[in-house]
Amino acid sequence: MAATAAITALTAGGDLRTWSLIVTIFGDMARAPGAEIPGPVLTALAARIGVKPEAVRVALHRLRKDGWIASRRAGRVSHYFLTEAGRAESEHATARIFARHAPAPDSWHVAIAGPLDPGARLAIDGTMAGYVALAPSAWLGRGPAPDPLDPRLFTLDGSALRLPGWLSEALLPAALSEAYAGFDATLARVSTLLGDEIDALSPLDRAAIRVLLVHGWRRLVLRHPDLPDRFFPADWPGAAARAQVHDLLDRLGQPSLAEVADAVPA
Amino acid sequence: MAATAAITALTAGGDLRTWSLIVTIFGDMARAPGAEIPGPVLTALAARIGVKPEAVRVALHRLRKDGWIASRRAGRVSHYFLTEAGRAESEHATARIFARHAPAPDSWHVAIAGPLDPGARLAIDGTMAGYVALAPSAWLGRGPAPDPLDPRLFTLDGSALRLPGWLSEALLPAALSEAYAGFDATLARVSTLLGDEIDALSPLDRAAIRVLLVHGWRRLVLRHPDLPDRFFPADWPGAAARAQVHDLLDRLGQPSLAEVADAVPA
Repeated sequence: MAATAAITALTAGGDLRTWSLIVTIFGDMARAPGAEIPGPVLTALAARIGVKPEAVRVALHRLRKDGWIASRRAGRVSHYFLTEAGRAESEHATARIFARHAPAPDSWHVAIAGPLDPGARLAIDGTMAGYVALAPSAWLGRGPAPDPLDPRLFTLDGSALRLPGWLSEALLPAALSEAYAGFDATLARVSTLLGDEIDALSPLDRAAIRVLLVHGWRRLVLRHPDLPDRFFPADWPGAAARAQVHDLLDRLGQPSLAEVADAVPA
Repeated sequence: MAATAAITALTAGGDLRTWSLIVTIFGDMARAPGAEIPGPVLTALAARIGVKPEAVRVALHRLRKDGWIASRRAGRVSHYFLTEAGRAESEHATARIFARHAPAPDSWHVAIAGPLDPGARLAIDGTMAGYVALAPSAWLGRGPAPDPLDPRLFTLDGSALRLPGWLSEALLPAALSEAYAGFDATLARVSTLLGDEIDALSPLDRAAIRVLLVHGWRRLVLRHPDLPDRFFPADWPGAAARAQVHDLLDRLGQPSLAEVADAVPA
Protein backbone atom coordinates (compact mmCIF):
# COMPACT_ATOMS: atom_id res chain seq x y z
CA MET A 1 0.00 0.00 0.00
CA ALA A 2 1.47 3.34 -1.11
CA ALA A 3 0.60 5.28 2.06
CA THR A 4 2.19 2.71 4.36
CA ALA A 5 5.35 2.63 2.23
CA ALA A 6 5.51 6.45 2.26
CA ILE A 7 5.03 6.55 6.03
CA THR A 8 7.74 3.93 6.47
CA ALA A 9 10.13 5.95 4.30
CA LEU A 10 9.39 9.14 6.24
CA THR A 11 9.89 7.52 9.66
CA ALA A 12 13.00 5.54 8.69
CA GLY A 13 15.26 8.09 10.38
CA GLY A 14 13.91 6.70 13.62
CA ASP A 15 14.15 9.19 16.43
CA LEU A 16 10.67 10.75 16.36
CA ARG A 17 9.87 12.44 19.65
CA THR A 18 6.20 12.12 20.33
CA TRP A 19 5.76 15.54 22.01
CA SER A 20 7.52 17.19 19.07
CA LEU A 21 5.34 15.28 16.61
CA ILE A 22 2.22 16.49 18.44
CA VAL A 23 3.49 20.06 18.21
CA THR A 24 3.75 19.50 14.45
CA ILE A 25 0.22 18.04 14.31
CA PHE A 26 -1.24 21.12 16.01
CA GLY A 27 0.87 23.38 13.78
CA ASP A 28 -0.41 21.70 10.62
CA MET A 29 -4.02 20.97 11.57
CA ALA A 30 -5.19 23.06 14.50
CA ARG A 31 -3.39 26.34 14.89
CA ALA A 32 -6.47 28.49 14.11
CA PRO A 33 -8.08 30.09 17.16
CA GLY A 34 -10.86 27.78 18.41
CA ALA A 35 -9.52 24.70 16.61
CA GLU A 36 -9.53 21.55 18.75
CA ILE A 37 -8.37 17.99 18.16
CA PRO A 38 -10.37 15.20 19.85
CA GLY A 39 -8.16 12.78 21.77
CA PRO A 40 -9.17 9.76 19.61
CA VAL A 41 -8.17 11.63 16.44
CA LEU A 42 -4.74 12.39 17.89
CA THR A 43 -4.34 8.78 18.95
CA ALA A 44 -5.43 7.46 15.54
CA LEU A 45 -3.11 9.84 13.67
CA ALA A 46 -0.20 8.90 15.93
CA ALA A 47 -0.99 5.20 15.56
CA ARG A 48 -0.93 5.54 11.74
CA ILE A 49 2.58 6.91 12.14
CA GLY A 50 3.57 4.08 14.49
CA VAL A 51 3.34 5.90 17.82
CA LYS A 52 1.62 4.03 20.69
CA PRO A 53 -1.38 5.51 22.59
CA GLU A 54 0.58 5.41 25.86
CA ALA A 55 3.33 7.60 24.32
CA VAL A 56 0.68 10.06 23.11
CA ARG A 57 -0.80 10.24 26.63
CA VAL A 58 2.62 10.97 28.19
CA ALA A 59 3.41 13.62 25.56
CA LEU A 60 0.02 15.34 25.97
CA HIS A 61 0.60 15.43 29.72
CA ARG A 62 3.98 17.04 29.23
CA LEU A 63 2.74 19.60 26.69
CA ARG A 64 -0.12 20.54 29.00
CA LYS A 65 2.30 20.94 31.94
CA ASP A 66 4.52 23.19 29.77
CA GLY A 67 1.56 25.41 28.89
CA TRP A 68 1.60 24.54 25.17
CA ILE A 69 -1.81 22.95 25.06
CA ALA A 70 -4.94 22.77 27.20
CA SER A 71 -7.94 20.46 27.05
CA ARG A 72 -11.61 20.32 27.79
CA ARG A 73 -13.78 17.30 28.33
CA ALA A 74 -16.99 16.67 26.45
CA GLY A 75 -18.60 13.48 27.70
CA ARG A 76 -15.97 10.75 27.56
CA VAL A 77 -13.78 12.55 25.00
CA SER A 78 -11.01 15.08 25.74
CA HIS A 79 -10.52 17.84 23.17
CA TYR A 80 -7.06 19.38 22.95
CA PHE A 81 -6.22 22.88 21.76
CA LEU A 82 -3.24 25.25 21.74
CA THR A 83 -2.97 27.78 24.58
CA GLU A 84 -2.44 31.43 23.62
CA ALA A 85 1.30 31.00 24.25
CA GLY A 86 1.39 27.73 22.33
CA ARG A 87 -0.44 29.26 19.37
CA ALA A 88 1.88 32.27 19.31
CA GLU A 89 4.94 30.00 19.15
CA SER A 90 3.26 27.77 16.61
CA GLU A 91 2.33 30.71 14.37
CA HIS A 92 5.88 31.99 14.58
CA ALA A 93 7.39 28.64 13.59
CA THR A 94 4.83 27.74 10.94
CA ALA A 95 5.42 31.04 9.17
CA ARG A 96 8.92 29.76 8.47
CA ILE A 97 8.01 26.13 7.94
CA PHE A 98 5.30 26.83 5.35
CA ALA A 99 7.08 29.68 3.55
CA ARG A 100 7.19 28.81 -0.16
CA HIS A 101 10.24 30.98 -0.72
CA ALA A 102 13.37 31.84 1.22
CA PRO A 103 13.21 35.34 2.67
CA ALA A 104 14.64 38.13 0.49
CA PRO A 105 15.08 41.14 2.76
CA ASP A 106 16.26 44.25 0.97
CA SER A 107 18.17 45.57 3.96
CA TRP A 108 20.26 44.35 6.84
CA HIS A 109 22.09 45.61 9.86
CA VAL A 110 25.27 44.55 11.58
CA ALA A 111 25.40 44.99 15.37
CA ILE A 112 28.67 44.90 17.29
CA ALA A 113 29.16 44.86 21.04
CA GLY A 114 32.17 46.54 22.57
CA PRO A 115 34.25 45.15 25.39
CA LEU A 116 31.84 43.60 27.92
CA ASP A 117 32.19 41.70 31.14
CA PRO A 118 30.89 38.11 30.92
CA GLY A 119 27.57 38.96 32.58
CA ALA A 120 26.80 41.80 30.18
CA ARG A 121 27.83 39.66 27.22
CA LEU A 122 25.47 36.91 28.30
CA ALA A 123 22.67 39.46 28.66
CA ILE A 124 23.26 40.85 25.15
CA ASP A 125 23.59 37.34 23.68
CA GLY A 126 20.15 36.60 25.11
CA THR A 127 18.58 39.50 23.23
CA MET A 128 20.01 38.56 19.82
CA ALA A 129 17.60 35.73 18.95
CA GLY A 130 16.94 35.67 15.21
CA TYR A 131 20.33 37.22 14.47
CA VAL A 132 23.17 35.51 12.63
CA ALA A 133 26.27 35.34 14.83
CA LEU A 134 29.13 36.57 12.65
CA ALA A 135 31.76 36.63 15.40
CA PRO A 136 31.72 36.43 19.21
CA SER A 137 30.50 40.03 19.43
CA ALA A 138 29.09 40.72 15.96
CA TRP A 139 25.65 39.87 14.62
CA LEU A 140 23.73 40.28 11.34
CA GLY A 141 20.01 41.10 11.48
CA ARG A 142 17.34 41.54 8.84
CA GLY A 143 16.08 45.02 8.02
CA PRO A 144 17.40 48.23 9.59
CA ALA A 145 18.50 48.18 13.23
CA PRO A 146 15.42 48.20 15.46
CA ASP A 147 14.86 51.15 17.72
CA PRO A 148 15.40 50.86 20.61
CA LEU A 149 18.22 48.36 20.52
CA ASP A 150 20.74 47.90 23.32
CA PRO A 151 22.54 51.28 23.34
CA ARG A 152 25.85 49.49 23.84
CA LEU A 153 25.66 48.11 20.31
CA PHE A 154 27.34 49.72 17.33
CA THR A 155 25.13 49.27 14.27
CA LEU A 156 25.40 49.84 10.53
CA ASP A 157 22.31 49.59 8.32
CA GLY A 158 22.89 48.61 4.71
CA SER A 159 21.98 46.36 1.85
CA ALA A 160 25.00 45.15 -0.14
CA LEU A 161 26.41 42.01 1.45
CA ARG A 162 29.47 39.96 0.62
CA LEU A 163 29.26 36.44 2.01
CA PRO A 164 32.43 34.43 2.57
CA GLY A 165 32.60 30.64 2.60
CA TRP A 166 33.21 30.32 6.33
CA LEU A 167 29.81 31.87 6.98
CA SER A 168 27.92 29.26 4.91
CA GLU A 169 29.83 26.55 6.70
CA ALA A 170 29.05 28.04 10.10
CA LEU A 171 25.35 28.41 9.23
CA LEU A 172 25.04 24.95 7.80
CA PRO A 173 27.51 22.50 9.34
CA ALA A 174 28.25 19.32 7.37
CA ALA A 175 25.91 17.17 9.52
CA LEU A 176 22.95 19.47 8.84
CA SER A 177 23.78 19.63 5.14
CA GLU A 178 23.80 15.82 5.04
CA ALA A 179 20.47 15.72 6.87
CA TYR A 180 19.04 18.01 4.15
CA ALA A 181 20.43 15.75 1.44
CA GLY A 182 18.92 12.70 3.15
CA PHE A 183 15.51 14.36 3.46
CA ASP A 184 15.63 15.52 -0.14
CA ALA A 185 16.25 11.91 -1.23
CA THR A 186 13.42 10.67 1.02
CA LEU A 187 11.05 13.19 -0.52
CA ALA A 188 11.88 11.97 -4.02
CA ARG A 189 11.26 8.40 -2.84
CA VAL A 190 7.92 9.34 -1.21
CA SER A 191 6.83 11.11 -4.37
CA THR A 192 7.58 7.99 -6.42
CA LEU A 193 5.93 5.66 -3.89
CA LEU A 194 2.72 7.68 -3.82
CA GLY A 195 2.62 8.21 -7.57
CA ASP A 196 -0.90 8.50 -8.89
CA GLU A 197 -2.36 6.85 -5.80
CA ILE A 198 -1.93 10.13 -3.96
CA ASP A 199 -5.40 11.25 -5.13
CA ALA A 200 -7.09 8.17 -3.65
CA LEU A 201 -5.59 8.33 -0.13
CA SER A 202 -7.89 8.37 2.90
CA PRO A 203 -8.08 11.61 4.91
CA LEU A 204 -6.21 9.88 7.78
CA ASP A 205 -3.39 8.76 5.47
CA ARG A 206 -3.17 12.19 3.90
CA ALA A 207 -3.03 13.81 7.33
CA ALA A 208 -0.39 11.34 8.56
CA ILE A 209 1.86 11.86 5.54
CA ARG A 210 1.42 15.64 5.74
CA VAL A 211 2.41 15.63 9.40
CA LEU A 212 5.54 13.61 8.66
CA LEU A 213 6.51 15.86 5.75
CA VAL A 214 6.02 18.99 7.83
CA HIS A 215 7.77 17.41 10.80
CA GLY A 216 10.83 16.37 8.81
CA TRP A 217 11.05 19.78 7.15
CA ARG A 218 10.53 21.61 10.43
CA ARG A 219 13.37 19.72 12.08
CA LEU A 220 15.78 20.94 9.38
CA VAL A 221 14.53 24.49 8.86
CA LEU A 222 14.48 25.45 12.52
CA ARG A 223 18.09 24.37 12.98
CA HIS A 224 19.54 27.36 11.13
CA PRO A 225 18.67 31.05 10.78
CA ASP A 226 16.03 32.09 8.23
CA LEU A 227 18.09 33.52 5.39
CA PRO A 228 18.15 33.83 1.61
CA ASP A 229 19.50 30.72 -0.14
CA ARG A 230 22.71 32.47 -1.17
CA PHE A 231 23.87 32.44 2.47
CA PHE A 232 24.16 28.67 2.28
CA PRO A 233 26.66 26.44 0.44
CA ALA A 234 26.11 26.26 -3.31
CA ASP A 235 25.54 22.48 -3.15
CA TRP A 236 22.97 22.75 -0.34
CA PRO A 237 19.77 20.93 -1.42
CA GLY A 238 17.54 23.20 0.72
CA ALA A 239 15.80 24.99 -2.13
CA ALA A 240 15.13 21.68 -3.92
CA ALA A 241 13.80 20.06 -0.73
CA ARG A 242 11.56 23.08 -0.03
CA ALA A 243 10.09 22.80 -3.53
CA GLN A 244 9.48 19.05 -3.08
CA VAL A 245 7.83 19.53 0.32
CA HIS A 246 5.43 22.11 -1.11
CA ASP A 247 4.72 20.03 -4.18
CA LEU A 248 3.80 17.01 -2.03
CA LEU A 249 1.71 19.09 0.40
CA ASP A 250 -0.15 20.68 -2.51
CA ARG A 251 -0.88 17.27 -4.02
CA LEU A 252 -1.97 15.81 -0.69
CA GLY A 253 -4.25 18.74 0.07
CA GLN A 254 -5.27 19.64 3.60
CA PRO A 255 -7.86 17.22 5.02
CA SER A 256 -10.12 18.91 7.54
CA LEU A 257 -10.24 17.70 11.14
CA ALA A 258 -13.84 16.62 10.51
CA GLU A 259 -12.79 14.47 7.55
CA VAL A 260 -10.09 12.81 9.61
CA ALA A 261 -12.43 12.40 12.61
CA ASP A 262 -15.01 10.66 10.41
CA ALA A 263 -12.53 7.88 9.81
CA VAL A 264 -11.93 7.37 13.53
CA PRO A 265 -14.24 5.49 15.92
CA ALA A 266 -15.45 8.04 18.50
CA MET B 1 59.69 89.03 21.35
CA ALA B 2 56.37 87.49 20.29
CA ALA B 3 57.85 84.85 17.95
CA THR B 4 60.25 83.55 20.60
CA ALA B 5 57.46 83.39 23.19
CA ALA B 6 55.23 81.52 20.72
CA ILE B 7 58.02 79.08 19.86
CA THR B 8 58.68 78.51 23.57
CA ALA B 9 54.98 77.82 24.17
CA LEU B 10 54.82 75.39 21.24
CA THR B 11 57.95 73.48 22.32
CA ALA B 12 57.06 73.40 26.03
CA GLY B 13 55.83 69.80 25.75
CA GLY B 14 59.47 68.87 25.37
CA ASP B 15 59.91 65.63 23.51
CA LEU B 16 60.45 66.82 19.93
CA ARG B 17 62.13 64.17 17.85
CA THR B 18 64.36 65.83 15.33
CA TRP B 19 63.76 63.32 12.51
CA SER B 20 60.03 63.66 12.99
CA LEU B 21 60.31 67.47 12.99
CA ILE B 22 62.24 67.30 9.72
CA VAL B 23 59.50 65.12 8.23
CA THR B 24 57.07 67.89 9.21
CA ILE B 25 59.29 70.56 7.64
CA PHE B 26 59.35 68.73 4.32
CA GLY B 27 55.62 68.13 4.55
CA ASP B 28 54.90 71.82 5.11
CA MET B 29 57.52 73.44 2.88
CA ALA B 30 58.88 71.05 0.28
CA ARG B 31 56.51 68.27 -0.69
CA ALA B 32 56.04 69.50 -4.26
CA PRO B 33 57.95 67.47 -6.87
CA GLY B 34 61.31 69.15 -7.49
CA ALA B 35 61.27 71.10 -4.20
CA GLU B 36 64.56 71.07 -2.31
CA ILE B 37 65.70 72.51 1.02
CA PRO B 38 69.31 73.68 1.24
CA GLY B 39 71.14 72.27 4.29
CA PRO B 40 71.77 75.72 5.83
CA VAL B 41 68.03 76.57 5.67
CA LEU B 42 67.15 73.33 7.46
CA THR B 43 69.79 74.04 10.08
CA ALA B 44 68.61 77.64 10.59
CA LEU B 45 64.97 76.62 10.86
CA ALA B 46 65.83 73.86 13.34
CA ALA B 47 68.01 76.26 15.33
CA ARG B 48 65.14 78.74 15.57
CA ILE B 49 63.11 75.95 17.14
CA GLY B 50 65.95 75.08 19.52
CA VAL B 51 67.36 72.02 17.75
CA LYS B 52 71.17 71.81 17.46
CA PRO B 53 72.93 71.41 14.06
CA GLU B 54 74.45 68.09 15.19
CA ALA B 55 70.95 66.67 15.87
CA VAL B 56 69.84 67.82 12.40
CA ARG B 57 72.83 66.08 10.82
CA VAL B 58 72.06 62.81 12.62
CA ALA B 59 68.36 62.99 11.70
CA LEU B 60 69.09 63.73 8.03
CA HIS B 61 71.46 60.74 7.95
CA ARG B 62 68.75 58.51 9.40
CA LEU B 63 66.03 59.77 7.03
CA ARG B 64 68.35 59.28 4.06
CA LYS B 65 69.14 55.74 5.21
CA ASP B 66 65.42 55.01 5.56
CA GLY B 67 64.78 56.19 1.99
CA TRP B 68 62.63 59.19 3.02
CA ILE B 69 64.91 61.84 1.64
CA ALA B 70 67.83 62.11 -0.75
CA SER B 71 70.33 64.89 -1.36
CA ARG B 72 72.50 66.40 -4.03
CA ARG B 73 75.53 68.60 -3.60
CA ALA B 74 75.91 71.97 -5.32
CA GLY B 75 79.32 73.42 -4.47
CA ARG B 76 79.66 73.37 -0.70
CA VAL B 77 75.92 73.14 -0.03
CA SER B 78 73.80 69.95 0.21
CA HIS B 79 70.20 70.22 -1.02
CA TYR B 80 67.69 67.80 0.47
CA PHE B 81 64.50 66.57 -1.14
CA LEU B 82 61.87 63.88 -0.58
CA THR B 83 62.32 60.58 -2.40
CA GLU B 84 59.33 59.28 -4.38
CA ALA B 85 58.43 57.02 -1.45
CA GLY B 86 58.91 59.85 1.05
CA ARG B 87 56.75 62.20 -0.99
CA ALA B 88 53.99 59.61 -1.33
CA GLU B 89 53.89 59.12 2.44
CA SER B 90 54.09 62.85 3.02
CA GLU B 91 51.22 63.58 0.60
CA HIS B 92 49.15 60.91 2.29
CA ALA B 93 49.69 62.34 5.78
CA THR B 94 49.44 66.01 4.83
CA ALA B 95 46.06 65.42 3.20
CA ARG B 96 44.79 64.58 6.68
CA ILE B 97 46.89 67.13 8.57
CA PHE B 98 45.83 70.09 6.41
CA ALA B 99 42.19 69.09 5.97
CA ARG B 100 40.01 72.02 7.06
CA HIS B 101 37.09 69.77 7.88
CA ALA B 102 36.61 66.33 9.34
CA PRO B 103 35.69 63.78 6.69
CA ALA B 104 31.98 63.26 6.06
CA PRO B 105 31.67 60.04 4.09
CA ASP B 106 28.14 59.19 2.99
CA SER B 107 28.73 55.46 3.14
CA TRP B 108 30.58 52.88 5.17
CA HIS B 109 31.26 49.19 5.27
CA VAL B 110 31.73 46.74 8.08
CA ALA B 111 34.13 43.85 7.45
CA ILE B 112 34.18 40.75 9.63
CA ALA B 113 36.69 37.92 9.58
CA GLY B 114 35.60 34.40 10.41
CA PRO B 115 37.52 31.95 12.53
CA LEU B 116 41.20 32.27 11.57
CA ASP B 117 44.41 30.72 12.77
CA PRO B 118 46.79 33.26 14.34
CA GLY B 119 48.91 33.58 11.20
CA ALA B 120 45.94 34.34 8.96
CA ARG B 121 44.56 36.79 11.52
CA LEU B 122 47.86 38.66 11.60
CA ALA B 123 47.89 38.77 7.80
CA ILE B 124 44.36 40.22 7.65
CA ASP B 125 45.10 42.68 10.46
CA GLY B 126 48.00 43.94 8.36
CA THR B 127 45.70 44.76 5.43
CA MET B 128 43.17 46.75 7.50
CA ALA B 129 45.16 49.99 7.81
CA GLY B 130 42.79 52.97 7.81
CA TYR B 131 39.97 50.87 9.25
CA VAL B 132 38.41 51.36 12.67
CA ALA B 133 38.76 48.20 14.77
CA LEU B 134 35.30 47.56 16.22
CA ALA B 135 36.12 44.17 17.75
CA PRO B 136 38.96 41.65 17.45
CA SER B 137 37.64 40.50 14.05
CA ALA B 138 35.38 43.37 12.97
CA TRP B 139 36.33 46.61 11.24
CA LEU B 140 34.60 49.73 9.93
CA GLY B 141 35.80 51.31 6.71
CA ARG B 142 34.82 54.42 4.77
CA GLY B 143 32.81 54.07 1.55
CA PRO B 144 31.59 50.76 0.12
CA ALA B 145 33.75 47.66 0.54
CA PRO B 146 36.64 47.86 -1.92
CA ASP B 147 36.89 45.23 -4.62
CA PRO B 148 38.88 43.06 -4.34
CA LEU B 149 39.00 42.74 -0.59
CA ASP B 150 40.20 39.64 1.21
CA PRO B 151 37.57 37.04 0.18
CA ARG B 152 37.56 35.67 3.72
CA LEU B 153 35.85 38.87 4.92
CA PHE B 154 32.11 39.21 5.35
CA THR B 155 31.09 42.77 4.42
CA LEU B 156 27.98 44.93 4.63
CA ASP B 157 27.83 48.29 2.84
CA GLY B 158 25.57 50.92 4.34
CA SER B 159 25.17 54.43 5.56
CA ALA B 160 23.14 54.71 8.79
CA LEU B 161 25.44 54.28 11.78
CA ARG B 162 24.69 54.13 15.47
CA LEU B 163 27.76 54.91 17.58
CA PRO B 164 27.93 53.71 21.18
CA GLY B 165 30.03 55.38 23.89
CA TRP B 166 32.59 52.59 24.13
CA LEU B 167 33.63 53.29 20.54
CA SER B 168 34.44 56.98 21.21
CA GLU B 169 36.44 55.94 24.24
CA ALA B 170 38.32 53.30 22.27
CA LEU B 171 39.08 55.74 19.44
CA LEU B 172 40.18 58.53 21.75
CA PRO B 173 41.62 57.24 25.03
CA ALA B 174 41.72 59.70 27.94
CA ALA B 175 45.45 60.44 27.45
CA LEU B 176 44.93 61.47 23.84
CA SER B 177 41.89 63.54 24.74
CA GLU B 178 44.00 65.36 27.35
CA ALA B 179 46.76 65.92 24.79
CA TYR B 180 44.16 67.55 22.51
CA ALA B 181 42.95 69.76 25.35
CA GLY B 182 46.55 70.77 26.13
CA PHE B 183 47.27 71.60 22.50
CA ASP B 184 44.03 73.56 22.20
CA ALA B 185 45.08 75.66 25.22
CA THR B 186 48.57 76.18 23.76
CA LEU B 187 47.05 77.39 20.48
CA ALA B 188 44.94 79.96 22.31
CA ARG B 189 48.07 81.11 24.15
CA VAL B 190 50.12 81.34 20.91
CA SER B 191 47.35 83.33 19.27
CA THR B 192 47.37 85.80 22.16
CA LEU B 193 51.19 85.99 22.26
CA LEU B 194 51.44 86.74 18.54
CA GLY B 195 48.55 89.20 18.52
CA ASP B 196 48.96 91.91 15.90
CA GLU B 197 52.70 91.28 15.62
CA ILE B 198 51.90 88.24 13.50
CA ASP B 199 51.94 90.40 10.36
CA ALA B 200 55.44 91.68 11.06
CA LEU B 201 57.19 88.35 11.64
CA SER B 202 60.27 87.42 9.60
CA PRO B 203 59.89 84.60 7.05
CA LEU B 204 62.12 82.39 9.23
CA ASP B 205 59.94 83.00 12.31
CA ARG B 206 56.78 82.42 10.32
CA ALA B 207 58.22 79.16 8.94
CA ALA B 208 59.37 78.03 12.41
CA ILE B 209 55.99 78.70 14.03
CA ARG B 210 54.14 77.05 11.13
CA VAL B 211 56.31 73.95 11.44
CA LEU B 212 55.61 73.72 15.17
CA LEU B 213 51.86 74.19 14.66
CA VAL B 214 51.73 71.54 11.95
CA HIS B 215 53.97 69.24 13.96
CA GLY B 216 51.87 69.48 17.12
CA TRP B 217 48.67 68.95 15.15
CA ARG B 218 50.12 66.06 13.18
CA ARG B 219 51.16 64.25 16.34
CA LEU B 220 47.54 64.31 17.56
CA VAL B 221 45.68 63.71 14.30
CA LEU B 222 47.73 60.71 13.21
CA ARG B 223 47.13 58.93 16.52
CA HIS B 224 43.49 58.08 15.73
CA PRO B 225 41.51 57.10 12.63
CA ASP B 226 40.26 59.85 10.32
CA LEU B 227 36.55 60.07 11.15
CA PRO B 228 33.69 62.54 11.43
CA ASP B 229 33.65 64.45 14.72
CA ARG B 230 30.57 62.62 15.94
CA PHE B 231 32.65 59.45 16.40
CA PHE B 232 34.55 61.18 19.20
CA PRO B 233 33.46 62.12 22.74
CA ALA B 234 31.18 65.15 22.90
CA ASP B 235 33.70 67.10 25.02
CA TRP B 236 36.61 66.39 22.65
CA PRO B 237 38.24 69.73 21.68
CA GLY B 238 39.43 68.41 18.30
CA ALA B 239 37.15 70.52 16.13
CA ALA B 240 38.08 73.67 18.10
CA ALA B 241 41.80 72.87 17.85
CA ARG B 242 41.52 72.21 14.11
CA ALA B 243 39.86 75.61 13.63
CA GLN B 244 42.57 77.32 15.67
CA VAL B 245 45.39 75.62 13.76
CA HIS B 246 43.94 76.74 10.44
CA ASP B 247 43.27 80.24 11.69
CA LEU B 248 46.91 80.61 12.81
CA LEU B 249 48.30 79.05 9.60
CA ASP B 250 46.15 81.40 7.51
CA ARG B 251 47.33 84.42 9.46
CA LEU B 252 50.99 83.33 9.28
CA GLY B 253 50.83 82.67 5.55
CA GLN B 254 53.21 80.31 3.79
CA PRO B 255 56.69 81.85 3.37
CA SER B 256 58.47 80.50 0.30
CA LEU B 257 61.73 78.60 0.64
CA ALA B 258 63.44 81.46 -1.18
CA GLU B 259 62.15 84.00 1.36
CA VAL B 260 63.37 81.83 4.22
CA ALA B 261 66.72 81.19 2.49
CA ASP B 262 67.28 84.93 2.01
CA ALA B 263 67.34 85.29 5.79
CA VAL B 264 70.01 82.59 6.16
CA PRO B 265 73.76 83.06 5.43
CA ALA B 266 74.65 80.68 2.57
